[in-house]
Amino acid sequence: MGGVAGLTVDRDGDAVVARTQLGRPSRVVLAGHLDTVPIADNLPARRDGDRLYGCGTSDMKAGVAVMLHLAATMPPAGLAHDLTFVFYDNEEVEAARNGLRRLAARHRDWLDGDLAILMEPTSGEIEAGCQGTLRVVATLPGRRAHSARSWLGDNAIHRAGDLLTRLGAYRPRRVVIDGCEYREGLSAVRIAGGVAGNVIPDRCEVTVNFRFAPDRDEAGALDHVREVLAGYEVAVTDSAGGALPGLARPAAAEFVAATGRVPRAKYGWTDVARFAQLGIPGVNYGPGDPNLAHTRDEYVELPLVDEAAHVLRAYLTRVA
Amino acid sequence: MGGVAGLTVDRDGDAVVARTQLGRPSRVVLAGHLDTVPIADNLPARRDGDRLYGCGTSDMKAGVAVMLHLAATMPPAGLAHDLTFVFYDNEEVEAARNGLRRLAARHRDWLDGDLAILMEPTSGEIEAGCQGTLRVVATLPGRRAHSARSWLGDNAIHRAGDLLTRLGAYRPRRVVIDGCEYREGLSAVRIAGGVAGNVIPDRCEVTVNFRFAPDRDEAGALDHVREVLAGYEVAVTDSAGGALPGLARPAAAEFVAATGRVPRAKYGWTDVARFAQLGIPGVNYGPGDPNLAHTRDEYVELPLVDEAAHVLRAYLTRVA
Repeated sequence: MGGVAGLTVDRDGDAVVARTQLGRPSRVVLAGHLDTVPIADNLPARRDGDRLYGCGTSDMKAGVAVMLHLAATMPPAGLAHDLTFVFYDNEEVEAARNGLRRLAARHRDWLDGDLAILMEPTSGEIEAGCQGTLRVVATLPGRRAHSARSWLGDNAIHRAGDLLTRLGAYRPRRVVIDGCEYREGLSAVRIAGGVAGNVIPDRCEVTVNFRFAPDRDEAGALDHVREVLAGYEVAVTDSAGGALPGLARPAAAEFVAATGRVPRAKYGWTDVARFAQLGIPGVNYGPGDPNLAHTRDEYVELPLVDEAAHVLRAYLTRVA
Repeated sequence: MGGVAGLTVDRDGDAVVARTQLGRPSRVVLAGHLDTVPIADNLPARRDGDRLYGCGTSDMKAGVAVMLHLAATMPPAGLAHDLTFVFYDNEEVEAARNGLRRLAARHRDWLDGDLAILMEPTSGEIEAGCQGTLRVVATLPGRRAHSARSWLGDNAIHRAGDLLTRLGAYRPRRVVIDGCEYREGLSAVRIAGGVAGNVIPDRCEVTVNFRFAPDRDEAGALDHVREVLAGYEVAVTDSAGGALPGLARPAAAEFVAATGRVPRAKYGWTDVARFAQLGIPGVNYGPGDPNLAHTRDEYVELPLVDEAAHVLRAYLTRVA
C-alpha cells in the first residue's frame, strides 16, 4: 500500500485501518467489510466476459478492490482530503460481532472524518441512509406424546402454521423520506422443531427478521413485530437501528453533487447507521449489485468497478 | 439366566435370543426391545411409592424386566410350552435398523413359535394387531435473496404455513376391526429451514408421520398422504405396514382367554407386524402405560409389573 505516502496502518483483530496524515482540512472515510455470506456452490469465482461470478463478488469484494486500488495508486499531492481506509470483519453476522462496532468502541479516533462512503453494493448509485434490522425468535410450545397417539400431545410444529401464514400474508409498508422510498420486509429466516421421528414435538422455534424504514426506531420496530406476532412468545436476538438519509448535510451533499447521481433509498441495513451514531454523515456507494447480494448467482459487472474507481478518484482529487 | 434349564443363548449384534428346548408341542415367544427414545431430563429413574419414573420405564424396560424375571425363576418342569425370549435393539428408530427385522432376515429359525407376545406397554391389557407407520419428507422450494429485499426472493419457510395449517386441520379417521377401534394420526415430527439470519431461505423440509389403521396397506397409506399434501414434493423415508388383529387364530385366542381380558386395538406400530409377516400370530401385552410412552413424565405402575409376571406365569404353566 506504499502508493499513498505516509499511510499509517493499524490493526484490531481482523480489521485494518490505513490513514493519510496530510493535514488537509477535511477527511473522507472509505469503508468496506471483508466477510461474505456462506458459500452456496458459487466458488471458485469465474469471469464471463464483463462479469465476475462468485460468492461475495458484489457484496462486497468489488468495493474492497476499489479501495485497495485507490490506496495503491493515488498520488498524495493531488488529494483534496485526507483519506481513511477501513477494512473490517464480521458484517454478515449478528451485530454484536461487527468489526466496525468494535473499532467504534475501542478506537473511535481511527474512524474520524467528515464523510463516510460505505462501499456496499449500490450498482454505482448513491444510496442514502439505511433501514434498520431486528431479529426475534418466536418459541411455540407444545406437549410431547408418542406420534401413534397424537391426540394426547399438542404439536408445536403445527402451531407454526398460523404464524407462517401471517408472515406470508403480511403486506410490508413503503415510506418516502427525503425523496427516497424505503420498503420494509418481515421474513422468517430460520425454523427448527422436532424431537424424534415418532414423537409429537413440544417445541418449535421460528426466527423472524424485520427490515424497517429509518422513520421507526428500534423500540417502535419491536412493538410492530409484537403486534403482528400477537399471541406468540417473542425474544429479541439482534437489533440495529437505521439511519435517516441526512442528504441535507454539507459533506453528503458535496459528494452527491460531485457524482451527479440522484440518490435513492438504501434497503439493506448497513454500517452507515454506525457512522450516523458517531455523528459522521454517510452514504452507500459501490460497484456491486445489491439485488445479487446473498444469492447463489452473485456476480459483479466489471465496468462498474472501473467506474467507481474513476468517480472516486475525481471526487477525492477535486479542489473543494 | 440359569433358572430355566437348557436355555440356549444366541446373540446377533445387540440382540440376544434365549430358548428352551424341552420338546413341548408348542412354543411361545416373549419379545421386547432394549432401546428407548432420547432422554428428556428424565434420568436417573426414581421410585415414588408404587411408581417408577424415568426414560423407558413404560416403553419398555418394565416388560423386559418381566421377561428376565420369568427366565430366571420359572422351573422348566412346569412349562406347558417351550419358551423363546427375544431381547432386541433399535426399535425406536427408523425401521431399517430394527433388530427384530435383522433377526428375521438372518436367523429366521430363532423366532419360530406358535404365538408371539410382544411386551410393549399396554397397561396390562391385550392389544391386538397394530397400526402401520409411514414417514415422508415434504421439501418446499424457494429462492434466496437478501432479507432486506425480501420481495426479490421466495420464502420457502413461509410456504410451510399452508402445509402446517392443513396438518393442524386434518381430522384423522377411526375404524373398527374385529371389535377393536383403530385411530389414525398425521403429524409433523420435524421441520428445518434457513440459510442465515439475513437470507430469504430457499428450502424448508417438513417430516410428516402417518400412523394408519391396519385396513390400509403401505401403498394405500402413501396415496392418502400424497392426497392430503397435494402440491408438495413428498419423499418416503420410512414405511412399515400394520397388522390386522387376527384374534380368531387359535394361539392368540387361547392367550386372550387365559388372561380373561377384552382385547382392544393397538395404536402404536409394534413388531407384532413383523411376527405377522412371518406367519406367527402376535399380541401386545405389557405392564407399561402406552399413554406415557415417549413423554417427559414417563413412569410405570409397579403393581402392573407384578401382575404381568403372575399372569404370564399362570398362562405358561397351564396345561393347554
